[in-house]
Amino acid sequence: MNAPPDRPLAADLSADLSAGLSALERTDARALRLAIRAGRHHAHTVGLAPGRVQGNLVVLPQALAGDFMRFCQRNPKPCPLLAVTEPGDPVARELGEDVDLRTDVPRYRVWREGVLEGEVDDLRALWRDDWVGFVLGCSFSFEQALLDDGIPLRHVAEGRNVAMYRTSIPTSPAGRFSGPLVVSMRPMTAAHAIRAVQVTSRFPSVHGAPVHFGDPAAIGIADLSRPDYGDAVDILPGEVPVFWACGVTPQAALIVARPEVCVTHAPGCMLVTDRLNTELAAF
Amino acid sequence: MNAPPDRPLAADLSADLSAGLSALERTDARALRLAIRAGRHHAHTVGLAPGRVQGNLVVLPQALAGDFMRFCQRNPKPCPLLAVTEPGDPVARELGEDVDLRTDVPRYRVWREGVLEGEVDDLRALWRDDWVGFVLGCSFSFEQALLDDGIPLRHVAEGRNVAMYRTSIPTSPAGRFSGPLVVSMRPMTAAHAIRAVQVTSRFPSVHGAPVHFGDPAAIGIADLSRPDYGDAVDILPGEVPVFWACGVTPQAALIVARPEVCVTHAPGCMLVTDRLNTELAAF
Repeated sequence: MNAPPDRPLAADLSADLSAGLSALERTDARALRLAIRAGRHHAHTVGLAPGRVQGNLVVLPQALAGDFMRFCQRNPKPCPLLAVTEPGDPVARELGEDVDLRTDVPRYRVWREGVLEGEVDDLRALWRDDWVGFVLGCSFSFEQALLDDGIPLRHVAEGRNVAMYRTSIPTSPAGRFSGPLVVSMRPMTAAHAIRAVQVTSRFPSVHGAPVHFGDPAAIGIADLSRPDYGDAVDILPGEVPVFWACGVTPQAALIVARPEVCVTHAPGCMLVTDRLNTELAAF
Repeated sequence: MNAPPDRPLAADLSADLSAGLSALERTDARALRLAIRAGRHHAHTVGLAPGRVQGNLVVLPQALAGDFMRFCQRNPKPCPLLAVTEPGDPVARELGEDVDLRTDVPRYRVWREGVLEGEVDDLRALWRDDWVGFVLGCSFSFEQALLDDGIPLRHVAEGRNVAMYRTSIPTSPAGRFSGPLVVSMRPMTAAHAIRAVQVTSRFPSVHGAPVHFGDPAAIGIADLSRPDYGDAVDILPGEVPVFWACGVTPQAALIVARPEVCVTHAPGCMLVTDRLNTELAAF
């Protein structure tokens, strides 16, 4: 759910986030959630609460929750489940102190029958007793690990959204959910790609190791300069494209499943948790 | 579901398994499943189809499947989900060629309202359209990795079942499922314990790294010589007890949840899959 095609993130990513947030709110996950809950931050969460896990949000009626959970279980690389709430309970207790899925995401998208209906800043008026919340790992966690390891990421350096592509690799279907694997692509040197395999392998719950590198046609991508979602970046001489399973995959599956109603976070406007990125490391 | 208290495995583990099985059936997972399906093997599966993943089985009506799946998601160390079947579909497609949950386990246990009703060799007469099968990783996979790494395991050397204990560590409840974490214990030297942390960390989907070592009282175990399940083993001078999350944990939770009906494998009589143990390695 990182970035649907209709809403590139480039502008958002370069926007000034400091307006309205104190230094504490920019760095402390709990303070940031309270600021968001108070309606003082509706923008993306890139770079906020550094070191803390940010997650993709999917909210579904209980009738479809079993299908979606099996879909995630069968496709753990694109859909790494960090938490699933009790039906009707908006609090994700495993993710931190008082994490309320109705209020703690800066902006939500509401979908009906697989079609985007609109965006809201608060779910309290919409929340239903049969809703189940799913929080999925997002690539912010492993990108931080790559940057910390000295591996440059071009889209970050250029203030763009990562390039994402629908592939010819099918997901394993479950109930009404199916669709293509969506991947994100980061160009890097072979040496960095090898190190990136090592670094991201430690983070299976935020997409883990790459799924492919090199020839895009081998996974059904016709033209790297025309991503299906996000922004294209240059691939320089001596670099190879490296592809990771992407959190947009469940969005493609939600469009196929056409749930009566579904809520996701708006692109880049993630759920900020108290969990440390380092806690997600395999070891 | 490895070993409930009423049925120690020591006798089973030392039984001669060769009777009735060909060399191919002892080593090939698919041939073994077909022999089991044909009713020619009703005993435990320890040491059979070496290198292949064996799994714990839990079958529940769909009405409780969501609760149990959330329980597993919240307690991944004791309850590592390898596969969840579509409601009513007895075939676990992710686990190999034609893996039929109704016929391919040597012996099943049928539970009503949390109480053991009896054992059967075949589920075809019982199977219902609303049943969902869960296959959970089991410690056979990581024990093989430890043995391959030169770490001796006393219970294996002595032909006993591993010692298991209920702890004071609570699981994270989900719906009707709750209960204590159950752990298995393997005594080893400090050097082996350190190496065992490394080796088992690579296998998060079959219980992963230990949860504790040393003082049993720190996790609510009063007397190591009196395990709650399985067989006691000696702890020699210079050894420390090392504790891993155990696949009996979901059994303790099933007894709390008291599902109308539930089926599990009988202790030691696991589902043998086509998946390689090495595929489960984190990297």
